[in-house]
Amino acid sequence: MFINKLPSCLEAICMVVKMIIFPLIRHKSRIIVFIEEAVKLDELQSLWKFSINNVCLLSDSQFLMPGLVDTHIHASQYVYTGTALDLGLLEWLEKYTFPIESTFKDLKFAEHAYTKAVHRVVKSGTTTACYFATIHLQGTIKLCQIISDVGQRALVGKVNMDCNSPDFYQEDSTDSIQDTERFVETLLNQGNANLIPVLTPRFALTCTPKLMSALGEIAASHNLPIQSHLGESKGELDAVRSMHPGYDSYSDVYDKCGLLTSRTIMAHCIYLTEDELNLLKTRGVGVSHCPNSNTSIRSGLMDARDMLDRGIKLGLGTDVSGGYHPSMLDAMRQAIQVSNIVSFEHHEGENYKPLDYREVFRLATLGGSQVLNLEDKIGNFEVGKEFDALLVNFEALDSPFDVFERDTLEDKIQKFIFLGDDRNIEEVYVAGKNITCNNKLHCKLH
Amino acid sequence: MFINKLPSCLEAICMVVKMIIFPLIRHKSRIIVFIEEAVKLDELQSLWKFSINNVCLLSDSQFLMPGLVDTHIHASQYVYTGTALDLGLLEWLEKYTFPIESTFKDLKFAEHAYTKAVHRVVKSGTTTACYFATIHLQGTIKLCQIISDVGQRALVGKVNMDCNSPDFYQEDSTDSIQDTERFVETLLNQGNANLIPVLTPRFALTCTPKLMSALGEIAASHNLPIQSHLGESKGELDAVRSMHPGYDSYSDVYDKCGLLTSRTIMAHCIYLTEDELNLLKTRGVGVSHCPNSNTSIRSGLMDARDMLDRGIKLGLGTDVSGGYHPSMLDAMRQAIQVSNIVSFEHHEGENYKPLDYREVFRLATLGGSQVLNLEDKIGNFEVGKEFDALLVNFEALDSPFDVFERDTLEDKIQKFIFLGDDRNIEEVYVAGKNITCNNKLHCKLH
Ligand SMILES: [Zn+2]
Ligand SMILES: [Zn+2]
Repeated sequence: MFINKLPSCLEAICMVVKMIIFPLIRHKSRIIVFIEEAVKLDELQSLWKFSINNVCLLSDSQFLMPGLVDTHIHASQYVYTGTALDLGLLEWLEKYTFPIESTFKDLKFAEHAYTKAVHRVVKSGTTTACYFATIHLQGTIKLCQIISDVGQRALVGKVNMDCNSPDFYQEDSTDSIQDTERFVETLLNQGNANLIPVLTPRFALTCTPKLMSALGEIAASHNLPIQSHLGESKGELDAVRSMHPGYDSYSDVYDKCGLLTSRTIMAHCIYLTEDELNLLKTRGVGVSHCPNSNTSIRSGLMDARDMLDRGIKLGLGTDVSGGYHPSMLDAMRQAIQVSNIVSFEHHEGENYKPLDYREVFRLATLGGSQVLNLEDKIGNFEVGKEFDALLVNFEALDSPFDVFERDTLEDKIQKFIFLGDDRNIEEVYVAGKNITCNNKLHCKLH
Repeated sequence: MFINKLPSCLEAICMVVKMIIFPLIRHKSRIIVFIEEAVKLDELQSLWKFSINNVCLLSDSQFLMPGLVDTHIHASQYVYTGTALDLGLLEWLEKYTFPIESTFKDLKFAEHAYTKAVHRVVKSGTTTACYFATIHLQGTIKLCQIISDVGQRALVGKVNMDCNSPDFYQEDSTDSIQDTERFVETLLNQGNANLIPVLTPRFALTCTPKLMSALGEIAASHNLPIQSHLGESKGELDAVRSMHPGYDSYSDVYDKCGLLTSRTIMAHCIYLTEDELNLLKTRGVGVSHCPNSNTSIRSGLMDARDMLDRGIKLGLGTDVSGGYHPSMLDAMRQAIQVSNIVSFEHHEGENYKPLDYREVFRLATLGGSQVLNLEDKIGNFEVGKEFDALLVNFEALDSPFDVFERDTLEDKIQKFIFLGDDRNIEEVYVAGKNITCNNKLHCKLH
């Protein structure tokens, strides 16, 4: 249970009142039972019958915020994040990504790499991540175990690719479908409600329609989410057009295979036609905007404001390692920078408003939860939602920024968003459970 | 004295051999006396007569790199860095910058704010910074004291502005000139060779030609550097044109006032004509590229590749707080991202090569030293240069990134550039002196 000094500037977005208390005393459920002003503490105590010993009073330099939601990250690519940024998408896949992902056949290496990745991501404040693993069934199951042990909330996908890929990293269509069914069953049987299998055709260039349709059916039969890539680079568009000539558009390929549903997450979506955007809207598809990746591997500029104006569900993704940074704070900053550049490069003289820090904060929390269809459970602090949260300290030990007496609470929050890092994230909670992962606590492999 | 495992990938840029030794035993001078292969240690020892006890053998995870050079930073704006990013240049100056800079009249506040700023900048690995202070003489002298106490190398400028500014933050022209003369004298009399006064007309919009010409004369009479802003935003261009109608161009205003010399540093230079670029080249002016600032306050995209191709001296600047980040690592990353975007927005289909990590590394070290006319003293490791260096550890305690067995030395350096932070910078040297500023060492106010 916490007493939180809430950032008033973000109230309108994802927070409700100035001072709140979260009692987490309803065992098991770990949901937010009430959100009330701290001045009513006595009254609340007698109503809810909790001990004052269970109340955690935050210091003046601390605040609670909803956990960060990464809607698109390749866990297997974490090993080379921050490197291999000299090529565009298709060449990058061929030269770096496929060879490295293929090494995840080695389960020992997979365990080591995934452990590092998940711990890093949690340390960065990502309470929910939507992961791509690799094509390997056992490695993907290993990733799920690691996530489960750490206590992170996640969607995890075994990657499917049955064509246009190198011999050493391609599946037979039938094996691909069977392994996916086994993966889905395995994960569903584990009964961890915070760990959801997601159907993961890599993208239309490495999947046959036969495979994609089969994955669409698996998703439909279990009511599961689907993730893939869409409209990321111009070279990709051309290649999709020649590989799938019978379709109206890139999006239509996915749609005809039953992959565009209200539980679908599509990464990038930079180069979509009006018709495709309308199709995404109609199907209720969520879009993962990955600004670092789009700039780093020179895919292009995504117009996030346009997506928001259209009412398409939008969240942010790190897209490690097309994007070089595993932290959602970086995704927020890069989303602002890209939106700034879109404003003066594509909308000069228009009344175009680039994303501000409030909006990227919303995208990185509530927006992400909507894209992942988890907005009934997480994304902000509301009675009945699960408590996924970060305890942030502006003046943490060795904080990477300085606050001054003149700084308002809003200033401090901006400084955290633009300049903060994992040193400011003192505690990480998923479903009310403290999963903080650092040297001092229960992190096994760091 | 160190034994350095040098990053081979950066050899061509600013480093010379695989294994080097820096003896710093020539007292006072603190210059690099030799750079040799570590295998020759015995031989060197008998030749140079140093004790093996004075040799520092780096671990496998450490390397030495030249100190970072920030060619453009407003020390006074550090207090609000990471905030106030909702406006373009001219409105931003009026609403945020001028009011905040005016509070540096209060010497106590100035001391507090400057101390935080300088310590943060040094902690981030900036061994040399080219600072704007404010219009206040005493405050600017205080900044110099702080820099001197910390031991950083710096150019420091008392800002001049005698028109178009608010009543509470504008100087009388005569006072402005007199205060500048006093500042220059004070600093020169202190005899700290690492602390150089720089003439600092804010920019052509807040300075009369009379004032600018007087500053040009002071610079000429003492052979001192000059710094200002040039061609930063479109609104600024229009305003300069109407305020200074008798000149060929924005650059011509400065040139006619004697401000364009081979010791001049001009920040931004986004919107320059062919004639202006040729003029800068002819005069030997150095350009400070500030990508974070240009994106954050939506000034525009600077084409750094074009500057390099023209042979104009180029370095990087954080431009705190138009740029929100005081670290040159951020400046390097944002320079890459901006260059990537320039490549696909302005040069699609051309054979245009965006800046890579090697080139921004060079800009942040040797390039910066050239812009500040200090390339005979610093910028890389060469016999006869002063030892300004960072001891970097890929696997420092609480390092913000992970290295894996498969990572080459080049990969690790890329990870440091894209993902590293002050936690990886274990020691900071200026002119051979360890000025490391952190909680554990001799940092007074942190
Ligand atoms: Zn991706
Ligand atoms: Zn500036």
